[in-house]
Amino acid sequence: MGKLRNTEIDVIHGNADEVLADLQNELGVNEVLLGDAISDKYLKDWSGKRGTMPLALLLPRSTDEVSKALAVCHSHQWPVVPQGGLTGLAGGAVPSESAVVISLERMCGVEEVDSASATITLLAGTPLQAAQEAAQEAGFFFALDLGARGSCQVGGNIATNAGGNRVIRYGMARDLVLGLEVVLADGTVLPMLNKMVKNNAGPDLKGLFIGTEGTMGIITRAVLRLHAEVTGANTALIALPDFDAVVKLLRYAQKRLSGLVSAYEVMWADYYQSATTVDGIRAPLVADYPVYVLMDMQSAEPEENTERFYAVLEHAMEEGWMLDAAIAKSHSDAEDFWALRDSVAEMLNSYAPTINFDVSFPISKIGECVERLRRVMVDEFPDIHAMYFGHVGDGNLHIVVGPLPDDNQQTERALEDAFYEVTRDLGGSVSAEHGIGTHKKPYLAHSRNKAEIDLIKRMKQALDSQGILNPGKIID
Amino acid sequence: MGKLRNTEIDVIHGNADEVLADLQNELGVNEVLLGDAISDKYLKDWSGKRGTMPLALLLPRSTDEVSKALAVCHSHQWPVVPQGGLTGLAGGAVPSESAVVISLERMCGVEEVDSASATITLLAGTPLQAAQEAAQEAGFFFALDLGARGSCQVGGNIATNAGGNRVIRYGMARDLVLGLEVVLADGTVLPMLNKMVKNNAGPDLKGLFIGTEGTMGIITRAVLRLHAEVTGANTALIALPDFDAVVKLLRYAQKRLSGLVSAYEVMWADYYQSATTVDGIRAPLVADYPVYVLMDMQSAEPEENTERFYAVLEHAMEEGWMLDAAIAKSHSDAEDFWALRDSVAEMLNSYAPTINFDVSFPISKIGECVERLRRVMVDEFPDIHAMYFGHVGDGNLHIVVGPLPDDNQQTERALEDAFYEVTRDLGGSVSAEHGIGTHKKPYLAHSRNKAEIDLIKRMKQALDSQGILNPGKIID
Repeated sequence: MGKLRNTEIDVIHGNADEVLADLQNELGVNEVLLGDAISDKYLKDWSGKRGTMPLALLLPRSTDEVSKALAVCHSHQWPVVPQGGLTGLAGGAVPSESAVVISLERMCGVEEVDSASATITLLAGTPLQAAQEAAQEAGFFFALDLGARGSCQVGGNIATNAGGNRVIRYGMARDLVLGLEVVLADGTVLPMLNKMVKNNAGPDLKGLFIGTEGTMGIITRAVLRLHAEVTGANTALIALPDFDAVVKLLRYAQKRLSGLVSAYEVMWADYYQSATTVDGIRAPLVADYPVYVLMDMQSAEPEENTERFYAVLEHAMEEGWMLDAAIAKSHSDAEDFWALRDSVAEMLNSYAPTINFDVSFPISKIGECVERLRRVMVDEFPDIHAMYFGHVGDGNLHIVVGPLPDDNQQTERALEDAFYEVTRDLGGSVSAEHGIGTHKKPYLAHSRNKAEIDLIKRMKQALDSQGILNPGKIID
Repeated sequence: MGKLRNTEIDVIHGNADEVLADLQNELGVNEVLLGDAISDKYLKDWSGKRGTMPLALLLPRSTDEVSKALAVCHSHQWPVVPQGGLTGLAGGAVPSESAVVISLERMCGVEEVDSASATITLLAGTPLQAAQEAAQEAGFFFALDLGARGSCQVGGNIATNAGGNRVIRYGMARDLVLGLEVVLADGTVLPMLNKMVKNNAGPDLKGLFIGTEGTMGIITRAVLRLHAEVTGANTALIALPDFDAVVKLLRYAQKRLSGLVSAYEVMWADYYQSATTVDGIRAPLVADYPVYVLMDMQSAEPEENTERFYAVLEHAMEEGWMLDAAIAKSHSDAEDFWALRDSVAEMLNSYAPTINFDVSFPISKIGECVERLRRVMVDEFPDIHAMYFGHVGDGNLHIVVGPLPDDNQQTERALEDAFYEVTRDLGGSVSAEHGIGTHKKPYLAHSRNKAEIDLIKRMKQALDSQGILNPGKIID
């Protein structure tokens, strides 16, 4: 194949045949998959973005194999793309041209639940749902949860600092990680499998690999915190007059319920109206209120908490923050409420093709943000529908915009430009939980200034001087 | 003064007179304190460790002044020691020879409490207690708390990733930081004053400055999370048969109380017996039980929680985990229980000179650890007393050992060698919350391997290529 000059980064000058020969020599001929042996699934993520054919696909079974593979690629300055469950939405794990893809899928399994320490130790390729189930079997709760739970891998969740439904109470993936085993670009293994909540023996190195999307090292094992088991939830769907009331209710509920609010999902009227037209979706409240909140409070004894949960709603009614509410009387009721929030998939079909924003703001700015974005839509995109919702307890706003006209991505780009301009102006983030990958790279500078981006480059240089790890992702 | 060859690091080759002239030029002659104008308080921390006389002391009033000072020192390759409230116990802020000391004490004050976003923004030199009070005035709870609250500064708390009394529920300082403004070694200002819980727009850069003890940059401002206000606590002092029961009660209480346990302080009999002999200390339980736990559960409505708190203790009695308990009937009772835990200061006097360990372990290993350390004491130091206690809910064990013989630190070194050997063998950390500074530098390799220490050095090189920031701290 001869010399390759990679189009995305220009530091790659290795020889493909030599790379393959060395990989086969280190790992075994059958362990280096080529050409037709590489299934199409490794070429794309859930955003639909397709990459290009990799030079080879590796499915290592051990940290040692990951280390050997990286040492080979490092010695040849050859690009490597690490992959988890490929459920990302930012293109972060999609193969770049002629890269060696390392999928962690065979490094799968829970190695230990330490009940005394409340920790779980697992291989990076373990599906999130398997981790949740292992925790539950041991009488604990593994707090990370997101729609892709059956397909995504915990290593990928950590590499992308996944968020999801329970961040308001338990934090992001970052907040659950106690220890990591990581392989650096040159093959060096960092066995940092710490189990302690308190450990100030020098800098926190694991943070270098959390949320850096595989650009600083490959995560092969993790130790994660387990939380106390919850057995159910008190759940209500609440109609409110405006965003100011949304914030007041949030702060009051957090105080009255001692921080036990486990979800605080906001749906503006445009979202709620669309959601309730989806087949099979019940509308527990009429659709003409300005804004709706789905609030729940998980605990070990939901029945014991019913009275205080009601007291919050009564107070909200007295204060005028709440216009109406439906309280779940059963698990089935709660599922109906959640179906409203989870009907996004159907809405994406109804309004296809869509563009889906995942931004975050200081909570104090979200009301203003939605108003400004609505004006943008009315003024500049009057024929396109926008639906606002999100995990507002964490500052995270999602917006589905569609259907887009068939104009060769021109409208998509114009919408992104307009929305991210508002994001920048209000001190928000262009990516709340999905990461940067390749899709949001053009807008990274809206949320990070030059000094920060320079520092990211310095870190990258320090950890991966050859630039082989996931080149072209996050930064150029 | 001419050329200086620093004894701790050998990269400093600047000219002291030029450094002073440039600092005076940039900041003003009166802003560069010299000789007798430098109070003795800047020479030592709470460990009692004394440093050497600095070249100059700076008390900047703004980020811009910090930036100018660092730019000067960087250009001359001159060492800089950042200082907060100087309450550290590891020597991390003690001046090294001829360094320029930058104290943040004048950069003091809460700039904003954003009630909607539940954040507080403050200058780094703000005392912890002032932050707590500002949060309380706004109807929130600032969860970081430690004995030095009146003297320590929030910037120092962040730079050392402080722990303290409430980590079991709210995490370390790291877990409370949303945003930082930091000045890099060369004077570059990073204005990363993020307010969002969710922000995945590229790598988390603030983590580079949390717990790195001023070796990577100087923190000048911070945005921190506020939690829901608590108005009181349910508190009990509990006697247990063994460490196994301590763990079982912890896990049960966390589940039954939905993770609301706010303190779980363990005192072994040797500690409890000594504490109850301190003048003015009441002994709510007799002193011949093997181990004691002080457990509390903070909330907005403590009275409402009394029944479930009792239910935990009743279950513990039935299961045989609890031998006896005293339950606080009033705030005064609770204060009496906490006085037992806080009597450490008096015990340090009674057993002076002492050596005080701050180590952490996987919770599953703590029982074994205490047994091994006790054998070490009996076999090798039969005439010295050791008292075991700690924030065991976080894996953090404190041990006061004394009185030490007057043998020129020989016994101290022998004790450290023996205790840290056990720490290493059981996968523990030589510093749970106090940091490494200079005191624990000889033992860093007991908790971090060569690849990790190499990576710390690479990070240091990337962020501070001249090695001017707090040289000789954490690593050489």
